[in-house]
Amino acid sequence: MSVVINARMVAFAVHALAVVASVMVFVWSICYRGGFAWESTSKTLIFNLHPVLTLTGLVILGGEATISYKSLPFEKRVNKLIHLVLHAIAIILGILGIYAAFKHHNEKHIPNLYTIHSWVGIGVIVLYALQWLYSFIVYFFPGGSSALRRDLLPWHVFLGVFVYVLAVGNSVLGFLEKLTFLEKSGLDKFGSEAFLVNFMAIITILFGTFVLLIVYSKSPPSVEEDNYSYSAI
Amino acid sequence: MSVVINARMVAFAVHALAVVASVMVFVWSICYRGGFAWESTSKTLIFNLHPVLTLTGLVILGGEATISYKSLPFEKRVNKLIHLVLHAIAIILGILGIYAAFKHHNEKHIPNLYTIHSWVGIGVIVLYALQWLYSFIVYFFPGGSSALRRDLLPWHVFLGVFVYVLAVGNSVLGFLEKLTFLEKSGLDKFGSEAFLVNFMAIITILFGTFVLLIVYSKSPPSVEEDNYSYSAI
Ligand code: HEM
Ligand code: HEM
Repeated sequence: MSVVINARMVAFAVHALAVVASVMVFVWSICYRGGFAWESTSKTLIFNLHPVLTLTGLVILGGEATISYKSLPFEKRVNKLIHLVLHAIAIILGILGIYAAFKHHNEKHIPNLYTIHSWVGIGVIVLYALQWLYSFIVYFFPGGSSALRRDLLPWHVFLGVFVYVLAVGNSVLGFLEKLTFLEKSGLDKFGSEAFLVNFMAIITILFGTFVLLIVYSKSPPSVEEDNYSYSAI
Repeated sequence: MSVVINARMVAFAVHALAVVASVMVFVWSICYRGGFAWESTSKTLIFNLHPVLTLTGLVILGGEATISYKSLPFEKRVNKLIHLVLHAIAIILGILGIYAAFKHHNEKHIPNLYTIHSWVGIGVIVLYALQWLYSFIVYFFPGGSSALRRDLLPWHVFLGVFVYVLAVGNSVLGFLEKLTFLEKSGLDKFGSEAFLVNFMAIITILFGTFVLLIVYSKSPPSVEEDNYSYSAI
């Protein structure tokens, strides 16, 4: 059931969208929302760390990690190392980003965990970490039997895709929620900031879609090899 | 890359979650939000048709349609007919539901199409209809060549899953948005209605997840058949 595409080519679209999404979230946070701070009387600067860290971490680095086997030119052992290290960085940035959201709420005395965004967010980070942990044990160290590796692989893919879709979707939920708050406080529904945030959400969805296209792809039978194969001489 | 499960068993979980989600959205609309109307001075009654129609249509019937080949006991030709008819009903209910949302906005003089939920919503219904149309032509009438059917199938599955995930995700965006509006107007963030809506969102995500588990599954080699096979006598 895999679509036949040239994964290396689609990976360029993924990298390009990664750059676009990253630039957008920084432009939004810095030019429209006043930048970042870890300690400040302006609590919104603490919040601003939240979208930047979760988006660049869980969604963008997580997406690049997901496609590493098919996007990178190295041997399998190296690709695997990159896969697991990028996912680890994604998790760390995700935890820091969530910490910033709680810090913002606590210092502003807003209750925690009352939205579906925050519930799904906790689900994402817990499941992401569990996925990383059992996979490290089975596929890296100490490593499971080859029967276990083989039988578990479809589940590793399904659960990985599941938590990744949740992460992408939860980011879109976050954008919607933040923009709704801002619009209720008077932000123009059709102003430049509203369009920036909504298009950032669209770019995020497109990025995730291309990542999953690569996951569910297989490469075409190489035409070049057929034409120039030495075995035909 | 398919997970090995008994799709008929998982389909029971899908049907059960379908019932739970449907009951919840009706209870919410009727007991908490005052019920439905097509013409009324209470414009919120017009809006209430929107979540009921889109959720039961695009998400629930759409999900049941998606798994029909694996969940139903009939021969392939019948399953296919059910697949395409259920999807058609899903699209019609979806269009009616979206119409209700526009009607509500227009009669209340709220601008249309300013949220990411509404943008993705338009994307969902357009792509859903296109997916139905080309698939009808290729797989039903007049029908494509067998090479075309075969080569297109992985794309039919990928694009179908894509638009279905968008539909499920967009419903969750809708729940978040409506609940945020209500909470800004004073609804208790931790009251019974807030929990009902948030759990409805979770049930919706679970329903979609089990649907996709069935899509990406293959059946186990039947143990019974092996044990009781007459060929062994
Ligand atoms: C996968 C990525 C994300 C995860 C895992 C995540 C997780 C969380 C969590 C756990 C909270 C609750 C904090 C608390 O209750 O104190 C939260 C709050 C929040 N997040 Fe995110 N988030 C993500 C991405 C985003 C993005 C991209 C935005 C865009 C601005 C965003 C906007 C918000 C807002 C406005 C809040 C405060 C309101 C609330 O509690 O829902 N989030 N997030
Ligand atoms: C896949 C299912 C859904 C689709 C395709 C969809 C589509 C749409 C569209 C196109 C609009 C724009 C109407 C306008 O601009 O006048 C809209 C509005 C709205 N929808 Fe949905 N919807 C879906 C599910 C839901 C659900 C389950 C809820 C839960 C309550 C919901 C809540 C809302 C709200 C509050 C609005 C008004 C605010 C806005 O324009 O975003 N939607 N929907």
